[in-house]
Order: sequence, then structure tokens, then C-alpha cells
Amino acid sequence: MHAMEEWNFPARYDNEYLPDPASPYWFRNRETMDPEQRAEAVLARLRDVMRYAYRTSEFYRRKWNGAGINPEDITSFEAFESVPVVTKAELRQSQLEHPPFGDYLCAPESEIYHVHGTSGTTGTPTAFAVGRGDWDAIANNHARVMWGMGLRPGDTVFVAAVFSLYLGSWGALAGAERLRCRAFPFGAGAPGMTARAVRWLRAFKPKGFYATPSYALRLAEVAHAEGVDPKEFEIKVMFFSGEPGASVPSVRKAIEDSFGARVVDCGTMAEMTPFMSAAATSGTPDGMLLYQDIVHHEVCDPTTYRPVPYGGEGTPVYTHLERTSQPMIRLASGDLTSWVYEENPCGRTYPKLPRGVYGRIDDMIHIRGENVYPTEIDNVLRNVEHYGGEHRVVVTRTGSMDELTVQVECAHPTTTPTALEQFEKLVGSELQATLGLRVSVETFPSNTFERTDHKARRVDDRRALV
Amino acid sequence: MHAMEEWNFPARYDNEYLPDPASPYWFRNRETMDPEQRAEAVLARLRDVMRYAYRTSEFYRRKWNGAGINPEDITSFEAFESVPVVTKAELRQSQLEHPPFGDYLCAPESEIYHVHGTSGTTGTPTAFAVGRGDWDAIANNHARVMWGMGLRPGDTVFVAAVFSLYLGSWGALAGAERLRCRAFPFGAGAPGMTARAVRWLRAFKPKGFYATPSYALRLAEVAHAEGVDPKEFEIKVMFFSGEPGASVPSVRKAIEDSFGARVVDCGTMAEMTPFMSAAATSGTPDGMLLYQDIVHHEVCDPTTYRPVPYGGEGTPVYTHLERTSQPMIRLASGDLTSWVYEENPCGRTYPKLPRGVYGRIDDMIHIRGENVYPTEIDNVLRNVEHYGGEHRVVVTRTGSMDELTVQVECAHPTTTPTALEQFEKLVGSELQATLGLRVSVETFPSNTFERTDHKARRVDDRRALV
Repeated sequence: MHAMEEWNFPARYDNEYLPDPASPYWFRNRETMDPEQRAEAVLARLRDVMRYAYRTSEFYRRKWNGAGINPEDITSFEAFESVPVVTKAELRQSQLEHPPFGDYLCAPESEIYHVHGTSGTTGTPTAFAVGRGDWDAIANNHARVMWGMGLRPGDTVFVAAVFSLYLGSWGALAGAERLRCRAFPFGAGAPGMTARAVRWLRAFKPKGFYATPSYALRLAEVAHAEGVDPKEFEIKVMFFSGEPGASVPSVRKAIEDSFGARVVDCGTMAEMTPFMSAAATSGTPDGMLLYQDIVHHEVCDPTTYRPVPYGGEGTPVYTHLERTSQPMIRLASGDLTSWVYEENPCGRTYPKLPRGVYGRIDDMIHIRGENVYPTEIDNVLRNVEHYGGEHRVVVTRTGSMDELTVQVECAHPTTTPTALEQFEKLVGSELQATLGLRVSVETFPSNTFERTDHKARRVDDRRALV
Repeated sequence: MHAMEEWNFPARYDNEYLPDPASPYWFRNRETMDPEQRAEAVLARLRDVMRYAYRTSEFYRRKWNGAGINPEDITSFEAFESVPVVTKAELRQSQLEHPPFGDYLCAPESEIYHVHGTSGTTGTPTAFAVGRGDWDAIANNHARVMWGMGLRPGDTVFVAAVFSLYLGSWGALAGAERLRCRAFPFGAGAPGMTARAVRWLRAFKPKGFYATPSYALRLAEVAHAEGVDPKEFEIKVMFFSGEPGASVPSVRKAIEDSFGARVVDCGTMAEMTPFMSAAATSGTPDGMLLYQDIVHHEVCDPTTYRPVPYGGEGTPVYTHLERTSQPMIRLASGDLTSWVYEENPCGRTYPKLPRGVYGRIDDMIHIRGENVYPTEIDNVLRNVEHYGGEHRVVVTRTGSMDELTVQVECAHPTTTPTALEQFEKLVGSELQATLGLRVSVETFPSNTFERTDHKARRVDDRRALV
């Protein structure tokens, strides 16, 4: 046996394999081995993947020839880290010129098993082609990570995210199926579905639950409105991707308190599916471990795209180790995180994102010399008593002066002017303490702002319009 | 080899099998064999399935013991036809008493692969447990039927129905995956999704398309509103289940005319998945053939539940030949159809429902001594010039007098009182000619009535409230 279980390229997994029921690990060796030894195998694999992409895709040949890079030269991580990153804009451009999948489609079109894509709500949509073998590898990898979260064969896993272009729901489903769970792909998004979800959850009491963090909070609100305490669902493990919420302390706490369940953060990017390569485990529940043998994760300086040392902050850069349809090699995420390397209580020898992925470079609001992340505002508000559950962030400019206004729902039982004024003052001072700048606060009644069945969109930056 | 290809109970299919590309048949023998010979094999299988259900489920033991029936006695179709039917009310009752899956769950709970269910919009929902092996058999059967429709490996199949409890979308997806198509599980139901579907359909030009008939018509309307001719999607094969529309001549014609595609009707009931056991083929495009070796279909007298002769009208009664999780044995559908046995142009030796399933016993409106089916009204209206695309049927009672009112959208370019009056008169006389009774007609502008992303609900019978 190879030192790493089922380590092949292209990936070939034994679909009948299940670990010893008593083991916390799906693949004990791969997860607990000496990281230096793992890195050696990963480096060889990076070269394999680059060879494959160079041979099968015009996109990568053009890009690497232009940079004077040949896969055969990738004999060290230092060499690999000089490979230019791929941006989402390049992918979109490639798809425009070579519709529908771009010239980074490496597998023949006949091998495509599923088509998915980005929603296109914030620009031109991107189409994802996932190969038949890729899907199988995704299912195996997600099952493995979900095993690490504490899910086991026979557990019911309720998937409460829209089944459409979005890959989050499909990835959770594929993992649940492969793990031999009882998959309940309920979906989300259609009118009336949340109230129906409440009834089915109460009847089925699933052990596992997948959604976006925003939607879990909305589901809790709808349950209460229907007279149901979400704790009655008796969910044990709630795992999330799609947005940073599950690692934002107050959001995480709000979900844990509402459902009485353990919250697990996971996820990188749809392009990077198997996106669960970054995930918490039942033994290391905070942040996300980086399963470096599923996807190679780097946290890089956002200008040089060289890895920052452990302990530093940067932007994730991802490389597939198994995908053969649209392999991403040094995909720049545009997200923000920090990483550490320390002993993990669960025994896995992986680096960790202790605070998850907490923002995006382009989500950062530059205002009067300060950098503000929307997740910080979210975190502050959820810790304020009588917060009504939703808010909006409006950025305006008067002359050369930027103004940050937070419109916040207040659930104070008394709505006297005094009570509201006190609430506004409290919110303002808490935000100022965290963000380091003065914020205008406007109070609204509970349920003023639309809830989402998917990902939250709260920032309205009106400066560009002025 | 058995005279019938891959004929096993429990079902075991070779997931790598594909027919000769030139063959119109997936399983040539099973589809074209002497029907007497097939019936012999089916009879033996009915006994196998009954033995299995008797052994593994309290529900069937109780039911058959009460009727003095033992699986060993099923040595003729006559004996089988005396087995009491299962009603949906019995299934609901069983689930109430033995939550969540009822005591007709025959496989161990650990074998459950997927949970789905009825929406519960018209009563208590029913939960479906589909076993791992069942799912595999469903995928193989649907792939086989879709091959018969003219779909082939590599074709893109766009699934435009909600992925949730509803099994129609999942069944179409499982078939497309097994057929080695390129599955595009787009879904439906969330706000804004229809306009997005228009853009993706135009970009991808899928060969196959699955939806409910109502949703296909809505999609065409939305496309036109977006300035897109649905013919630009270049869809070749549109297959439908969930409602009778695809066999209602004017609905079928409206879809064919809008999309320039071939319309294929299929489907029995969610409980009966693999529901595609009744389906048209590319060679026999009208009505639905009954793949008697996938599901045993009977068309029965709705009081005696004995089969009516070919040529007669009755209600479908279905029996699974492969399901091991929740096998249905003589499930009474409550639907209405007629069946024939004749030589099929495609060469398959199956009986046929020449007009598909055209109604439900309980959909039938009894009014002033006449029986009116909502699909008949639909069919008449779609043939009337300037029909606006939607309508509602309202039934009221004044004293002892029942009144049928059809509220109909009019898309006449001029809305003068004269034009509207003429339209109303025309609708009234066309409906009277078909239904045999006087109908009140009320005209509304186009887009008055809500369109559906799922199944149409048009009848408002207010008599019970009086």
C-alpha cells in the first residue's frame, strides 16, 4: 500500500470502503501522517496535475508558456509558488471566447456528468463542468470530511439549500450518499418551503443538517413563528458553507443556541469542489482544517501571491489535486483568512484557518482610512441585546466625506423613544469600539429587512453612484 | 442468459451496460418479446414480490391475511387480480401509526438512501423511503425509457422542476446520469429562476428537457417577455410528468409550437417510482406505452378493481416488480385512463394508454348530471383564438342549482366591449359543445392568474362550503 490510502491520479476510490466504525479518521494515514512526508506526495501530485492540464488545455499551455513555466520544472514548492495565479476574470473571459466551458476544460465534453454554475447575480455567470470520475471523487472526499465531522452511515442528513446551479447543496448530498447516510435533499428557495421544512425536520429529527448560515437563522425565525422550538429538531451536527457565518463567533453562537447543535464550518469555493477540503472536525471544532491531500491550500500575500508564514493573514490560493474536468491550479479566491500550524486536538496533521474565511478582499469597505469587514458588523450586532436579527450597511459620500450607516432591526419589547434611543446609542458605541470609526445608526422594527434562503447581501455602497 | 435481459429480484443491473448505439431498444428482448412469454415471467415475479412483502412487512401481512390471501396462491393473473388494492389513505394511516415510513417499509432503515415525500398541499404528507438498490434500479429503468425517447449518452438534459420532496425531478436526473447524459439539474421554484433558466437554455441548447407541462408553458411566456423565442433553445425532446398536460392535445400542441420540440408524455405516480414505466417512445410518440416488465400496470374498473378489457376506460392500478424499500402492490391511483393493445410503430410489444392519463376520479366535477374533467376545459380553451394562457374553474351552488363558471384570460389585441363579448360567446359555445352543459364565462386580461412553477391547480369547487 502507498503510504497514503487510495492515492491515485486520476482519482480512483473504492466506493465500498468504509473505515473501522471506531476510528475518528476515514483515512488514518493520510490524515495523521508526518506533514513533511505528505508534502512530498503532494508536490509530486502537483506536477502530475500540471502535466495533465498542460497536455489537455490550451488555457494552461498559453498561460504557463507566457510565464516561461513548464510542469517539469515544478520540483519544489518554491517553484510551484511562482506559478501565476488564475483569476475568476480569466475564467469568465475563457468561457466567453470558448463557450460554454472555456478552454480550461481538460476532459472531453462527453465525460461531463453534471453542469452547474454561478448564479450570475453579481456578474456574468460561470459554467462548471464536473466529470463523471470527478463526481465520484468529490463524493468520496466529502464523505471522508463528513466522517471527520462526526456523521456516520445511517444518519439522516437534511440538505436545506437550493438544488440548482449552486454546488453547495449538491456537494453535501454527494457526500451524504457516499457516506451511506439517509439523504434528505429538501432544498430551499421556493415560497413556503421554509415552513414545510420546519414540519419535516420536526418529524424526522435528522442528525446532520446542511445550509448556509443565513438560512439556518431564517429557519429558526420561521420555526418560532410557527410555534416550534428549533431544538425539537434534535439536530446534532450542522455544517455550513457558502458564507463566512459559521466562523463568525456571534453568528455561530446564535445558531448553536437556537438549535442546540454543534456548528461546523467548511468550504472553499464552488470552482474548487470538493469544496469541503477546508472543514472543522468533531475533535477540532473551531475554524477549518485544511485537508492538504484533497486540495492544496495556500494562504498568500494578495500582491505577490507567495504564501505568508503560519500566523499571518492573506488570501487563499487553491489547487486541485484530483479534478480532471476543470482543474484549478493556483486559483486566487479573493477571500481573506489567516492560517496557523499547531497540534490539533483531533490528531490530524493539517494547518488550520482558526477564524475560518472571514471576508473578501473586495468586500472590505475602505472608509476614512479604516478597513471594515461586513462580518465584523454582523458579529457586533448579534452580541447586542434586543438585536432584531437583520441589518443593512449603507455607505455614502457627501463631498469628500464617507459615511457609514448601519440600519438595524430592534426587537426591544418596549418601543418608547427612550428605549430606541438607548438601543441606537449602544449599537453605535459597540460598533465604534470594534471598527474604530463613528457609525450612524438607524433603528427599524423586526422583520423590516428581507431574509434570505441563500447567502446574505447586506452592503449597499452608494459611493460609486455619486 | 434469461429470455429477459438483467431480470433479477432484487434488481441487479450492470451499471456499465449501454446498448448498441444503433439499437432503438435498451433491452431488445424485454421490449419486443412475445407478450405472453413476458407475462409468464411477470407473473412469477409478482409472486416473488408478494412473498418478499409478506415476509418483511406487517402492513401486507395484515392486509392479505385479512383477505385470506397468501403469496403462494398467486399462480394466475386472475388470482393476482383478486388481491385487494392499496389506497393512499391506507399508506397515510400506516405512516401515522408507524412514523415516519409506515409498516410497509420492507427494507431495514439503514438501507434507506434518499427520503422524499408528497408536498402535503392537499393533505397530510407521505414520506417516501427509497433504498440504495432501489435508486440504482430506478436510474437504470429511467435510462432505458429515456433511451426509448431518443436520448443518448452525451446529450445535455436540462431538468427544470424543483429538487425537493417531488420525485419527478430526481427521477429524471437519475435517468440522465445513468444514461451518461450531461445532466443539468437546474431546478425550479425560486423567485427569478425562470428568467435565469431562459439565459442558460439559450446558452446551452440542451437536447433533452424535463419539467411539468404547466411550467414549460410558463417558461415560454417568460422567454417571450425577455425577448427570447423558446425555439432558440433548440430542444429536441421534451419529456413531462406530474400532470396530464403532455397528452392533452392542445396543451401538447402549444408546447410543440412554442419550442419546436417533440413532446413525450410519461409518468405514473411518485409512489411508483420508477415512474417512467409508462412513457411514449420516439417511434410511438403518442400516449404512453406500459413497460410491463418494469412495473405491472392494470387499468381497472374503479369499483371492482378488476382489469377492464383493452379498449375500455378505468383507473390505473400499479404493482412494483423491483422496489424493495416501500414496494407498492396493487396501488390504486385514483387516475383515469383508457388502454389499448395494438401493434406499436416502435416495435415494442406493450399495451398503450393512447390518451395518457387524462384525469383523476376525484378531479371529475359532477355537475347537473354531467361529468366534467378539468383537462377537457383546458383542451377547449387552448384551441380558442386569443386565449390568454390561463384560466380558473369555479363551481358554485345556488339553492339546488350547480353553476360552472370559467374565468378565462383573453389576449385579444383590441379590448373593446364588442371584441370581449365575442370572445366570451365563442368560449361559451365551444365549452358547451364539448362538455354538454351551459357554462358562465368571465373574461380577464392576460396575466391575471398566477402561473405555476410546478403543477397547475385551477378548480375552485365552492359547493362544499355552502
